[in-house]
Amino acid sequence: MRGTITRVSNGFQLATRFSGVTTSPVRDILAVLSRGDVISFAGGIPDASLFELADFRAAFDHVLTHQGARALQYAATKGEPELLEQVASRLSRALPTTPDQVQVTSGSQEGIFLVGQVLLDPGDVVLVEQPTYLAAVQAFALAGASLVPVATDDHGVLPEALAAAIAQHHPKFVYLIPTFQNPTGRSMPAGRREAVAEVLLRTGVPLLEDDPYGELRFEGEAAPPLASLPGMSGQTVLLNSASKVMAPGVRIGWLRAEGDILRALEVAKQAVGLQSAVTDQLAVAHYLATCDLDAHIARVVGVYRERRDAMAAGLAGILPAGADITRPEGGMFLWVRLGGGLDTALRLPTALEEGVAYVPGRAFFARDADASTMRLSYVTNPVGTITEGLARLGRAFGW
Amino acid sequence: MRGTITRVSNGFQLATRFSGVTTSPVRDILAVLSRGDVISFAGGIPDASLFELADFRAAFDHVLTHQGARALQYAATKGEPELLEQVASRLSRALPTTPDQVQVTSGSQEGIFLVGQVLLDPGDVVLVEQPTYLAAVQAFALAGASLVPVATDDHGVLPEALAAAIAQHHPKFVYLIPTFQNPTGRSMPAGRREAVAEVLLRTGVPLLEDDPYGELRFEGEAAPPLASLPGMSGQTVLLNSASKVMAPGVRIGWLRAEGDILRALEVAKQAVGLQSAVTDQLAVAHYLATCDLDAHIARVVGVYRERRDAMAAGLAGILPAGADITRPEGGMFLWVRLGGGLDTALRLPTALEEGVAYVPGRAFFARDADASTMRLSYVTNPVGTITEGLARLGRAFGW
Repeated sequence: MRGTITRVSNGFQLATRFSGVTTSPVRDILAVLSRGDVISFAGGIPDASLFELADFRAAFDHVLTHQGARALQYAATKGEPELLEQVASRLSRALPTTPDQVQVTSGSQEGIFLVGQVLLDPGDVVLVEQPTYLAAVQAFALAGASLVPVATDDHGVLPEALAAAIAQHHPKFVYLIPTFQNPTGRSMPAGRREAVAEVLLRTGVPLLEDDPYGELRFEGEAAPPLASLPGMSGQTVLLNSASKVMAPGVRIGWLRAEGDILRALEVAKQAVGLQSAVTDQLAVAHYLATCDLDAHIARVVGVYRERRDAMAAGLAGILPAGADITRPEGGMFLWVRLGGGLDTALRLPTALEEGVAYVPGRAFFARDADASTMRLSYVTNPVGTITEGLARLGRAFGW
Repeated sequence: MRGTITRVSNGFQLATRFSGVTTSPVRDILAVLSRGDVISFAGGIPDASLFELADFRAAFDHVLTHQGARALQYAATKGEPELLEQVASRLSRALPTTPDQVQVTSGSQEGIFLVGQVLLDPGDVVLVEQPTYLAAVQAFALAGASLVPVATDDHGVLPEALAAAIAQHHPKFVYLIPTFQNPTGRSMPAGRREAVAEVLLRTGVPLLEDDPYGELRFEGEAAPPLASLPGMSGQTVLLNSASKVMAPGVRIGWLRAEGDILRALEVAKQAVGLQSAVTDQLAVAHYLATCDLDAHIARVVGVYRERRDAMAAGLAGILPAGADITRPEGGMFLWVRLGGGLDTALRLPTALEEGVAYVPGRAFFARDADASTMRLSYVTNPVGTITEGLARLGRAFGW
């Protein structure tokens, strides 16, 4: 399912660093899925039946009725003032933020990409969690970077391992998803966050903190972003997005940073695409100003919690002895480790024949992959479908 | 107005190649303009009063009423099938195109950027027209490329100069805007297109053909894109966009290519931002399927032609002896060359005080700039405002 692209014809010669860029196995699997009756645990795809369709229709209608000429026109690269205001206000719940500290992005994926473009020269090192979000790996690889994984446990990245990796590799920055991590679903408790921040502050290494899932908490105590710990805000680019809590189709995300790096990111965004869609920026701003996002999130969290429970219970009932699963307190993903030298990628064709899809874990490792792992999303399907999908998974693996 | 960004604090260290990236002087000037009563000839900003607001409102309403869950969901990186169909059909007027030869982009700026990411290693050469579109310069610089200008005359790039530059510099590709070029407004006639294509075919050097303005023709005979000349389609990435003929705020553009390069561009787009806004893709597709874009373009062309005439006549009446202006047959820009060692950038503060803005020509040159040039857009303002703006320009320059 996964491939590098090495050959092009008609005189086109790919950039050397592109040879290190692989296609996204998630996107490759999603392309297969459009074929038919496969139950997908593969993508981190929100359940579309939970979208606030009427609110979004009203928001777009408001924008095109009252701000139409503006919504269809060119605009500032930084973002629409109304959206910057709304985002700053929401971020300020955890970390005081002014609108000028916000840059609108086309999803937080673009935020990841922009930071890579601005900071990375070929050969530069980025430290990442082992395992980590694979499209971040893709974005940093396009900038020519070398990714070095840092060991993790159930509470996230290990502070001592992080300090050792910084001393050895002199990274340009560290990329972390501290809350409901992709792919594992794990979160760093408050104490671990403080210990990691202490390492970063002592060494002066910047942090790219990716937080798309933090508001999807089912239980447990909310942990503040690392960016909000004393001294960390200036040293961190914090990424966030409408995709997981509102709707991914509008492609609206944002980043929070301080000082000169903001200007560099804005210039990089000019080069990438001038500005994010103005229509969608104004619609999201209107939605945030007039709708109750907290109530929507509470509704979504209730549904996702039930699905997490169903998937966790179902897996506990079928997984063979020796397998581990994570039990995330929120977010979208469960992570399964089968062990025993198994390669889940080799079993995927059988699983697709049985009518169920997952993401083989291998792709989430920058190196030294544990191929016996897989990522399962519990948010896309209702409980009955989850149960049926797990039965198919069991048949595919012979459990 | 223009600046490089060299310093960042808080531990962030910019990538080396970022030191070659400058801010966009157009965007910097636009930021100044939001201050007040300045008549702007600076940006290539369509007249928002010509947007088909009711049609776009209806398109978004249709999409959110009938395709809402899809419009707000993740989608394929390549683009929505309805939009790929519409674009392929429209491109096929000049060059037979199937939907699978189309990739949706977030404006044609993203198309330029993606091609740079996929093909350019640091130090690679791109040949460009002298002068050329400055945000393309920015995008290629972010990929670490070295830009080499090729001499032009009133009919575009000189075939012999192009052949000599290819032999000397072994470029990864050539970037051209053959029709109503930015910044000069010039177009390549059919004979020149054939001669340029002959050079590219003989040398096997790929072409990035940027064609955002081609449909805004006021007079003269339409020249087909270079991509449509015999043998050229496989060797060309052709860029096009909704921005100049429909509305830039939706940020929808597209590229046409053939073969393996398409897959590489799609993977690069995954890394940059997964997909373009699905809402806007479906709305533009619905607009194209249900509205008469040709009739809209005819209306816009009528208005822009009158404004081009007003600006050309006004300039002819005030420019000093020895100054040259182009007389474009379409598009958005006039190009003025004052000569005599003048630097139009030095006069810009005075012009802004007088209440008129333009883009100093210097930024459009990859090297060996003629600083006595300036770019003037005639599309944003009605005739009366153009006349008043030219009077202010005359005072600022002491004509």
